[in-house]
Amino acid sequence: MRKNFNFSAGPAVLPEEVLLQAQKEMLDWNGTGVSIMELGHRGSEFKTIVEESEANLRELMNIPKNYRVLFISGGATHQFSMVPLNLYSAKKEADYIETGVWSKKAAAEAKHFGEVNVAAEVIKENGLFTVPPQSKWSLNPNADYVHYTPNETVEGIEFQWVPQTGKVPLVADMTSFILSRPVDVNQFGIIYAGAQKNMGQAGISVVIIRDDLIKDPIPGTPILYSYQITAEHHSLYNTPPTYSWYILNLVLRWMKQNGGVKKFAERNERRAMKLYQIIDKSKGFYLNTVHPDYRSWMNVVFNLETPELTQLFLDEAKKIGLKYLKGHRLVGGVRASLYNAMPDEGVNQLAEFMEEFAKRY
Amino acid sequence: MRKNFNFSAGPAVLPEEVLLQAQKEMLDWNGTGVSIMELGHRGSEFKTIVEESEANLRELMNIPKNYRVLFISGGATHQFSMVPLNLYSAKKEADYIETGVWSKKAAAEAKHFGEVNVAAEVIKENGLFTVPPQSKWSLNPNADYVHYTPNETVEGIEFQWVPQTGKVPLVADMTSFILSRPVDVNQFGIIYAGAQKNMGQAGISVVIIRDDLIKDPIPGTPILYSYQITAEHHSLYNTPPTYSWYILNLVLRWMKQNGGVKKFAERNERRAMKLYQIIDKSKGFYLNTVHPDYRSWMNVVFNLETPELTQLFLDEAKKIGLKYLKGHRLVGGVRASLYNAMPDEGVNQLAEFMEEFAKRY
Repeated sequence: MRKNFNFSAGPAVLPEEVLLQAQKEMLDWNGTGVSIMELGHRGSEFKTIVEESEANLRELMNIPKNYRVLFISGGATHQFSMVPLNLYSAKKEADYIETGVWSKKAAAEAKHFGEVNVAAEVIKENGLFTVPPQSKWSLNPNADYVHYTPNETVEGIEFQWVPQTGKVPLVADMTSFILSRPVDVNQFGIIYAGAQKNMGQAGISVVIIRDDLIKDPIPGTPILYSYQITAEHHSLYNTPPTYSWYILNLVLRWMKQNGGVKKFAERNERRAMKLYQIIDKSKGFYLNTVHPDYRSWMNVVFNLETPELTQLFLDEAKKIGLKYLKGHRLVGGVRASLYNAMPDEGVNQLAEFMEEFAKRY
Repeated sequence: MRKNFNFSAGPAVLPEEVLLQAQKEMLDWNGTGVSIMELGHRGSEFKTIVEESEANLRELMNIPKNYRVLFISGGATHQFSMVPLNLYSAKKEADYIETGVWSKKAAAEAKHFGEVNVAAEVIKENGLFTVPPQSKWSLNPNADYVHYTPNETVEGIEFQWVPQTGKVPLVADMTSFILSRPVDVNQFGIIYAGAQKNMGQAGISVVIIRDDLIKDPIPGTPILYSYQITAEHHSLYNTPPTYSWYILNLVLRWMKQNGGVKKFAERNERRAMKLYQIIDKSKGFYLNTVHPDYRSWMNVVFNLETPELTQLFLDEAKKIGLKYLKGHRLVGGVRASLYNAMPDEGVNQLAEFMEEFAKRY
């Protein structure tokens, strides 16, 4: 096993088994005599990856037949543009729920193409960040869609429930949420996610879209930003990021071999709660300011009393192989990202270190 | 050395040294204890790749200081949209030179955003495809830019000269041309290229753009399609395709270690001519229909008398390890892509096989 544990928020840790397989196959993939990186994307050989990856994701997420699975170059930021370009109707009205850095960025980009109504925002109550209940949201019943971000990677704010938007399609940026717990895909119009947190490496995204939402985009939409063109060409209109796609498939296979989403969800909850308990028992030595109902399983964010103490924590952690724990540049502090590929041993070592460090200072 | 030679037009062969290094570093890049795939893109560690790759490309291509080098997610098809979105002025007029499948696709996409004047087209003269001299082109002196494709990967049609467009910026899709021979960057407004032919693996492109062409794009341009935003953020506005970027840098390093562009150009010309000579001496057994002045160094395209004979050629070649020689689905026949990473031994074996096969049938 590797000596380091990588708590980076993304690009993030990958399963060691996946890396070992990629390493082994680097110069000869599946008896082709060539690397998967060198393989044409239109041949029968690469097709096996195209098909298996979709089948694996469908199985893991139990994706209904009336949803298409698209593999698209780039990450969530591409989707910030693609969603409005493809979902705005003539009236161009959308609701956005702003709960952190990423949902705000998504809303800001949509404003370039149409109207954005911020239907709800994160609030601070008794010193804790929380999201108002849906009954207090100002949802527009005629909106083209409602967009939200189930897990905010920067702030560590995560929904434990799914908004109910009736006939208005619900769009979710699941980049740091997908495959971390079961979801009922039927509740969503579009689910999108960059791969580099829970599904693989950077360079590729997954878009799960309900059939009826695939239609002509706004005129002047770049060809690769059309879900319709992408769907018609089975995600192969142009040369896709083949190696990222291959790694994505290896991760999905690994998840299937290791019990599937439900199993990972149990583990994810248990591991996050372990760290939150240490934080709560530390009597303010570690401080997390997210309401318990919205604490993230994937990104456990906390502060120490001073920037100097935070730096000392990060330095000492690094020395014992607990790496990339630094919080996002916008908020500082510490962020422990506990994606599926993080071994239990990493979380255990971090927990021990947190307790031991708190005792010392 | 590997037993197979990969003549795929792209994604294409990579240097064995590059693959071996990637393999070696798969689980521990540069002493970090993590894979490069798992490494955050904003850290000091990944920054070394960002900086080295730009420095390497600047050195290899002798890129002047008044040009920016951008690394952008996706391939040339993204640039088909980005070029017009960023270069069209209020009048929205551009000249396109149509010499094959790819330049036509570029022109078709530009039409979604403004006016396209096809200033010149490939023609057939005495049974051979050729490009009219520039004196016969209908260039618009007030065009926002002139776009051309120095090497058409599908048809194997390559310019041996650079159009002179005066004050009108010249834009070149160099996807299957870049680094195959020296170019004077000063003659271009924009050079763009997907990496997966001569520079690495799929998922990343390089855009070399003259300073004064970086400006506000057309309103409604998606944020990641703005050269300005990309340049301001040093190609790190969002999470880039980090692993593709890393492989790209390894290929650039390898080119420097192996003599640079001039050295590769000499080799590329010699190798292509070797195959064209066999074709020409075959008395019609192999048929290439491109005028000698426009024959591609990178993609040697030819036909055999019947589809059956072509298939037999491909099957027998494959048996002795000469793989992925099948022509593009739109034109059929045989296509031998001889990118920089193709070992001489591969070309020699193909040449021998072609001579031997022609004798037998």
